[in-house]
Amino acid sequence: MKHTDTLKPYKSGSKFSYTSGAYATIELLKTRPELVKEVYIHSAYSGKHILVKKCGDARIPVVFNDNAFRSVNQKENSYVMAVFDKYECPLNPGKPHIVLVNPSDMGNLGTVIRAMAGFGFTELAIITPAADILHPKTIRASMGAVFHIKHALFETFAEYRDAYAGHTCYPFMLDGGELPGVLQAAWTPLFSLIFGNEAEGLDSVFALEGRAVRIPQSPLVDSLNISVAVGIGAYEFAKRYGLV
Amino acid sequence: MKHTDTLKPYKSGSKFSYTSGAYATIELLKTRPELVKEVYIHSAYSGKHILVKKCGDARIPVVFNDNAFRSVNQKENSYVMAVFDKYECPLNPGKPHIVLVNPSDMGNLGTVIRAMAGFGFTELAIITPAADILHPKTIRASMGAVFHIKHALFETFAEYRDAYAGHTCYPFMLDGGELPGVLQAAWTPLFSLIFGNEAEGLDSVFALEGRAVRIPQSPLVDSLNISVAVGIGAYEFAKRYGLV
Repeated sequence: MKHTDTLKPYKSGSKFSYTSGAYATIELLKTRPELVKEVYIHSAYSGKHILVKKCGDARIPVVFNDNAFRSVNQKENSYVMAVFDKYECPLNPGKPHIVLVNPSDMGNLGTVIRAMAGFGFTELAIITPAADILHPKTIRASMGAVFHIKHALFETFAEYRDAYAGHTCYPFMLDGGELPGVLQAAWTPLFSLIFGNEAEGLDSVFALEGRAVRIPQSPLVDSLNISVAVGIGAYEFAKRYGLV
Repeated sequence: MKHTDTLKPYKSGSKFSYTSGAYATIELLKTRPELVKEVYIHSAYSGKHILVKKCGDARIPVVFNDNAFRSVNQKENSYVMAVFDKYECPLNPGKPHIVLVNPSDMGNLGTVIRAMAGFGFTELAIITPAADILHPKTIRASMGAVFHIKHALFETFAEYRDAYAGHTCYPFMLDGGELPGVLQAAWTPLFSLIFGNEAEGLDSVFALEGRAVRIPQSPLVDSLNISVAVGIGAYEFAKRYGLV
């Protein structure tokens, strides 16, 4: 009984979060089982036996309580959820990074994470203030890909820069050198692809941080959606550096 | 008074739809003024004068009625909206096409449209059943780009195929030839990039319709978000065929 008494809708200040839906829950169990406190399974869920076995193998308590879904899920119709401890992890200094400066929308942030993971990028720096990366909505939009990557928060870009001074920066800006041409330049296995906020993009001072890059685009739109921009940046760099 | 009496939340069966927000409304006025019945402006909107002038130039009635926003906008906080006649238009047979088979999510559909327009693609075929392309939510997700493209609905893929038999088809599938390698093949200025539904992708029979294409991806994810997939497909073909 203690479980359902304590389950409440997610708040960004809380120490735990939860996954909503079987897909994201299974990704979490696969990648970070040590963080999972308990898994809730609704009586209507058809994949019960397999999930119970997975949890048993990882010694994670399973709770069957349909009411718990009502208290936590306000809009989504999911039959599985996991409660887990929130986390943050230092980025691998030996791998390329994606840097998001003040991303503001959880759906976009999740889709960006799915796109970067899709091209083999596993290190994400987020400059705050920013949308909550471990909010159930972000997790869902990432299709659980958030658990496959490492993420770290920085209060300023300078703080990130100091921590990973060896990375060559590629800020994505409307007046940068065009992709893929810009990639003809010198080979560097350590690089950071930097993307601005949905509404404003990157401030012009970022051009001083490295080699500015522009994704060619038609005059029919003012800008690309951030997940499409990160997808194309990650795709081009992944091809060039053999990540996929 | 007649205006506010008739304004109701959008339904997919209705003959008109509306834009929500200044950005999409201005795109509509720029591209398809003949379809606009009236523009509503909230008293709190700061760009009033410019918008009133634009409407005057196009002889479009302007309505100032704050209550109208409450009756139509259920969640969004917008200060401008336009009521317009819904439309559909034959695709240009001399231009490349994007084909979406049963897209199911309005947010994704809007983002796909923004991405294709961003790389100069202006012709969209949608195989039904599908998310409503002129729903205010789709329009908003497209940032108004939907008004810059032509769209046509088809009940089956065969119906589309018959109508545009001269186009070379490139179905995007997990077991296709890899991008960008597949683009080394013969030059054809007329082509259709075909993408499946968010959950299921394209059925294997689509491989028979043309040259199947695969976007390389890491094993960390099962698939890419549809707007990212269309964005990368459109980007690669646009580079190859000089569309951007």
